[in-house]
Amino acid sequence: MIVARTIADLKEHLFALSEGGRRSIGFVPTMGYLHEGHASLMREAKANNDIAVLSVFVNPTQFGPNEDLDRYPRDEARDLKLSEESGIDVAFLPTVQEMYPKPSKTSVIVSGLTDRLCGASRPGHFDGVGLVVSKLFHLVKPDRAYFGMKDAQQVAVIQQIVNDLNFDTIIVPCPTVREPDGLALSSRNVYLSAEHRAQAVVLSQSLALAKDWIQEESMTAGLLLSSVKERIESAPDAVIDYVELLRYPTLEPLDEQELMHKLESPALLAMAVKFGTTRLIDNSLYHPNGGV
Amino acid sequence: MIVARTIADLKEHLFALSEGGRRSIGFVPTMGYLHEGHASLMREAKANNDIAVLSVFVNPTQFGPNEDLDRYPRDEARDLKLSEESGIDVAFLPTVQEMYPKPSKTSVIVSGLTDRLCGASRPGHFDGVGLVVSKLFHLVKPDRAYFGMKDAQQVAVIQQIVNDLNFDTIIVPCPTVREPDGLALSSRNVYLSAEHRAQAVVLSQSLALAKDWIQEESMTAGLLLSSVKERIESAPDAVIDYVELLRYPTLEPLDEQELMHKLESPALLAMAVKFGTTRLIDNSLYHPNGGV
Repeated sequence: MIVARTIADLKEHLFALSEGGRRSIGFVPTMGYLHEGHASLMREAKANNDIAVLSVFVNPTQFGPNEDLDRYPRDEARDLKLSEESGIDVAFLPTVQEMYPKPSKTSVIVSGLTDRLCGASRPGHFDGVGLVVSKLFHLVKPDRAYFGMKDAQQVAVIQQIVNDLNFDTIIVPCPTVREPDGLALSSRNVYLSAEHRAQAVVLSQSLALAKDWIQEESMTAGLLLSSVKERIESAPDAVIDYVELLRYPTLEPLDEQELMHKLESPALLAMAVKFGTTRLIDNSLYHPNGGV
Repeated sequence: MIVARTIADLKEHLFALSEGGRRSIGFVPTMGYLHEGHASLMREAKANNDIAVLSVFVNPTQFGPNEDLDRYPRDEARDLKLSEESGIDVAFLPTVQEMYPKPSKTSVIVSGLTDRLCGASRPGHFDGVGLVVSKLFHLVKPDRAYFGMKDAQQVAVIQQIVNDLNFDTIIVPCPTVREPDGLALSSRNVYLSAEHRAQAVVLSQSLALAKDWIQEESMTAGLLLSSVKERIESAPDAVIDYVELLRYPTLEPLDEQELMHKLESPALLAMAVKFGTTRLIDNSLYHPNGGV
């Protein structure tokens, strides 16, 4: 596995490996502290492309002033080991200085999709995502880019940017990978105390319950939301940031009275819940036929 | 010359001609109604790349609600003739529907550089430019893109976008092409009455005079500006939109007291002047050594 820390290095290696663009590139952009969720993306990238590229970059422009940029977990040695084991050919680990030699005067902003969910809780977050993804796509020129559906809103936002700006990259959403008890894998799980870790299972449990509740003839969007919230709040330390039910990928809210078993387009049940200072997100996508 | 009217057609032809990206592409994005200024860009693109690509697209997102989108001049037959004569291999002439099947939710916005000059007179103009240039660059994937310095602010904005977003395209600014009497070539010149056409020469004349005035030991930025404005206003129907003197390419205004012969970075003298309903722009770049 090649490790590139500068843009010049990355370009040189990609040009050589891809034979000037003739071999396909699968790309997994990450913020590092890789887990099995990332590994599943990396294996997918390798399986479906000639060259698999990983980036590890804790992008400062997607963190708010009071967020966890400084304490975001890092473990480069483990990241390099896991990425090599997962079939990555080129790992790109730039410094902040390399990616932002000067503050960017250019913004890539998506309206509409970013008003809700994490966009509402984390103002500016998706502007930072749009900026860094645009930069990384221009540097790596991937044929396909792999993103986990745990960040469903991020997938919707990036797909919108790709559509609107005619990026020549296929966005491949991949399923959320979970712990045996259902907790969605996240680099931020390491922040959880043992007690909070135990309680955090309430997120995936509520999503699983919702999958059943959704089948009930009288179940409306409003009732589903209140039932899910009630379930989450049964965990003593859970503090709900948001629980929302939205059409996917447009992220328009469902009408409170809408009957869930009559859904005509996919609906996303998405939640952000804090345990102490740790904010976890999870979601499930429900399809009109009742599938998940 | 291949004429592509759809994105699918463009991509297919570019892939074939460029042998999957192995041959270099020079790109000239335009709004059509081509003149010798465009021809000089097209010849430059052909001379320095394997494949020369032209786009003709009157981009609605860079026009304000009260601007001349509807009456912007068009002559496709002449455009195709001139582009073929200028060595273009692929002419891309998409419809608005092809470029914007839905209104874009994504914006590409440059702050700072776009507050002044045409950015101040035409709010949103450079957002539209940023959007369409991003789209076209993703579709054409040019190695080099050619822009006329008549739109100096546009060149600065696009160069900023390329730098900030790591586009893999070299921006090549090319000199303004002029009529024998000095009037900068512009598709909008056809709007001018004979009387206004005669008066319009005052723009290039004032720029030429400024080139001399700049050498005078006591000439300050403030005095230069007032002298240039006075000269322009000697044309009976000239209505000044702006005349500004800015550092280039940062577009920061010069101090009024700054002595012009002591310039330490290039300065742009830029103007927008209306004759009746026709708005003309022109500019000159002055270098620290007194060169132009």
